[in-house]
Amino acid sequence: MLLADLSPMGRGKAGIMTGQTPLFNRLALIGVGLIGSSIARAARAQGAVREIVATARSPATRQRVAELGLADQVVENNAAAAAGADLVIACVPVGVCGEVAKEVAPHLKRGAIVSDVGSVKATIVRDMAPHLPAAVHFVPAHPVAGTEHSGPEAGFAELFVGRWCILTPPQGTEPAAVDRLAAFWRLLGANVETMAADHHDLVLAITSHLPHLIAYTIVGTADELAEVTRSEVLKFSAGGFRDFTRIAASDPTMWRDVFLANKDAVLEMLGTFNEDLAQLTRAIRRGDGEALFEHFKRTRAIRRGIVEIGQDSPAPDFGRAHPGLPAAPLPRPYAVSDEN
Amino acid sequence: MLLADLSPMGRGKAGIMTGQTPLFNRLALIGVGLIGSSIARAARAQGAVREIVATARSPATRQRVAELGLADQVVENNAAAAAGADLVIACVPVGVCGEVAKEVAPHLKRGAIVSDVGSVKATIVRDMAPHLPAAVHFVPAHPVAGTEHSGPEAGFAELFVGRWCILTPPQGTEPAAVDRLAAFWRLLGANVETMAADHHDLVLAITSHLPHLIAYTIVGTADELAEVTRSEVLKFSAGGFRDFTRIAASDPTMWRDVFLANKDAVLEMLGTFNEDLAQLTRAIRRGDGEALFEHFKRTRAIRRGIVEIGQDSPAPDFGRAHPGLPAAPLPRPYAVSDEN
Repeated sequence: MLLADLSPMGRGKAGIMTGQTPLFNRLALIGVGLIGSSIARAARAQGAVREIVATARSPATRQRVAELGLADQVVENNAAAAAGADLVIACVPVGVCGEVAKEVAPHLKRGAIVSDVGSVKATIVRDMAPHLPAAVHFVPAHPVAGTEHSGPEAGFAELFVGRWCILTPPQGTEPAAVDRLAAFWRLLGANVETMAADHHDLVLAITSHLPHLIAYTIVGTADELAEVTRSEVLKFSAGGFRDFTRIAASDPTMWRDVFLANKDAVLEMLGTFNEDLAQLTRAIRRGDGEALFEHFKRTRAIRRGIVEIGQDSPAPDFGRAHPGLPAAPLPRPYAVSDEN
Repeated sequence: MLLADLSPMGRGKAGIMTGQTPLFNRLALIGVGLIGSSIARAARAQGAVREIVATARSPATRQRVAELGLADQVVENNAAAAAGADLVIACVPVGVCGEVAKEVAPHLKRGAIVSDVGSVKATIVRDMAPHLPAAVHFVPAHPVAGTEHSGPEAGFAELFVGRWCILTPPQGTEPAAVDRLAAFWRLLGANVETMAADHHDLVLAITSHLPHLIAYTIVGTADELAEVTRSEVLKFSAGGFRDFTRIAASDPTMWRDVFLANKDAVLEMLGTFNEDLAQLTRAIRRGDGEALFEHFKRTRAIRRGIVEIGQDSPAPDFGRAHPGLPAAPLPRPYAVSDEN
C-alpha cells in the first residue's frame, strides 16, 4: 500500500474529522454508466471533488445524467469535459479508451491526472499512453466492483465500499499522483493496491474474465437445448443455474471489449480450466467417486476464505431474500384414501 | 398441476382459514441435514403433520436434532423412524436411498407414502422401488431449493417458498397419494410439478448439475495457478469469481452422488457445453467481436425471464448488502505536487 491505512476498518479518530478540502477541484467523467455514475454519486457524497463535469457519447445518456443531477455540468464532448479538469476518468468500454485519450489530450490541464476504470490494463496503457502529453499524470485504475445492471440509473454511492481498486501506474509515474488517486479511491470506500498491468490482466483473467466467459457459455447452452424447454430452464433455475445468469446479464459491449483486449491471458486460463474439466469429466465417466469427493471437499475452503476477508456475504445464498410461508394452513378440498 | 391452485399467490379467502387438520399424522424424516431440517421446521410451522419422528446416521447429528427441538422424537435407526409413519421422507444423499428403502421396507405402515428429496430421480426409482412393499405409495420428489450450507443448523422454514418441487411418480402410482404429497409441498410454500424421472434428470442436468460441475472446476483451477496467488484470487473475487465459490461450497457427498447417479445426462450436457465454449474460444482467438457481442446480448434475456417469474431477486447483485461509505472525508496527511 502506498499510504498509511486509511480504509474504513483501519482508520483512527482522525477519520471522523469533517470539512476537509476536496482532493480535486474538477473531476471529469467521460462516460456515465454503472461505474461512472457510481463514482459521481460517491465523490459527491464524500466531498471528494469540488465540481463534476460529465459527458457521454449519446445525447440520451447526457440528458439522463442531467436529469439525475449526477454532475454540475453535462457537456457535449470529451474535449469540453477534459478542459480544466484536475482528474479525468474514462468510464467507457476498454475498446474506446485509446480514442478518448486522443480526444482529450490537447485539452488537458498541466498536472492533471488521467485515469480509467477498465477491466483490462495492458492494452489500456498501450492505447492511451501514446496520446497523453508529458505534463499530465497517467494512472490507470480498475475498481473491481459492479453489478449486472448498466447505465446511469444503475449506479450507487456504496458500490466501491470494501472492494479493491487496482492501480497500474506505468514505470516512471510520479508517486504523488499515484498517492492522490489512491486517496480518491479510498475516500470512495475502496481498498487500493498497485501492481504491474500484465499481472493485473492475469489475475483478473481468472477472478473475473473466465467466470464471465463460462457463465455466458452455459446460459447460452441452456437456451439452445432441444430436450429441455426454456420455460423449464427458467422454472428450475434455483438449482444453481440462476447464479450464472446474473453474470451473463452483464453489459455485452463492455465484455466483448474485455475478451478482445485480454485475449492471451483469457486463453491461457481457459486452457487450464479445460484440462481440469476434462479430469472431472473422466472421473464422472469412470464412476470415480473418491476423486470427485476429494475435489469437491477442497473448493469449500476457498469460499470460506472469501467470506473471511469480507469479499462476500456470510449469509447463505448471498443473503437472497426468502419470502415467508403461506399465512395459514390450507384447506384440503380433495379426498385421500387413508388406509389407517 | 394436480390440484386447484393452492400456491400463496393463487389462494382465495379459504387460504386464511386456520385450524385445519394436519395432512399426515406422523412424518418420518430419515436424515436431517439442510433439506430434512427445513422440512421439519416448515411442516411444524404450517401444522402440516401431527408428529415428527427423525433419525440420522451419526449419533452427533441425532443429538443436535434433539437439542434443536426439530422433531417430537429422535430415534436411533431408520426402521424405528419408519414404523407407524404416514409419510416417510428420505433426506439423504442419492447414493444411500436404496439402502434406506431396504431398511425401512419391513416396518412401513400399510398405505404410507414413501418419498425422498434427491436431485436425481431415475436411479432413485431404480434403487428404492424394488424394496418397497405393494401396500405403500412411492412418490419420489425433488424440491429444487437449497443453500451452500449443510447440516441440521442450516435449515429454515422458508427454504421452499416460491421454489418448485418436482414429483416423479412411477407409472401406476395412485393419484390420490401424489395429490396428498403435492398438498404437503404446497403447504410448505412450494409450487409442484410432476414429470417423468428421465426428463427430470435431463432438466436438472442443465439447471443444476452442470452449473455445479463448472463451478467446482473453475474454483479448483483458480486455486492451483502458479502465476496468481490464492490471496489474489480471494481479494479480487468480486470480479465474478466469488459467485462460483458459493455453489462450489455445496455438500461434497451429496454432489459426488449426484454426478455418479446422473452420469449420462451430465455427460450429454457437458458435450454441448464444450462445443459452445469452443465456439466462443474461437471467437476470442480470432478477435471476432461481433460474434461475442451477439452471444452476450442474447443471454441477458434469460436473466430477465428468471427474475420475471420470481425465481431470482430483481435487486442488483442478488441483493447483496453494501456497507455504507466511510463516515466523513478523510484527512490527507501527505503532500501532493499540485501544478495548478
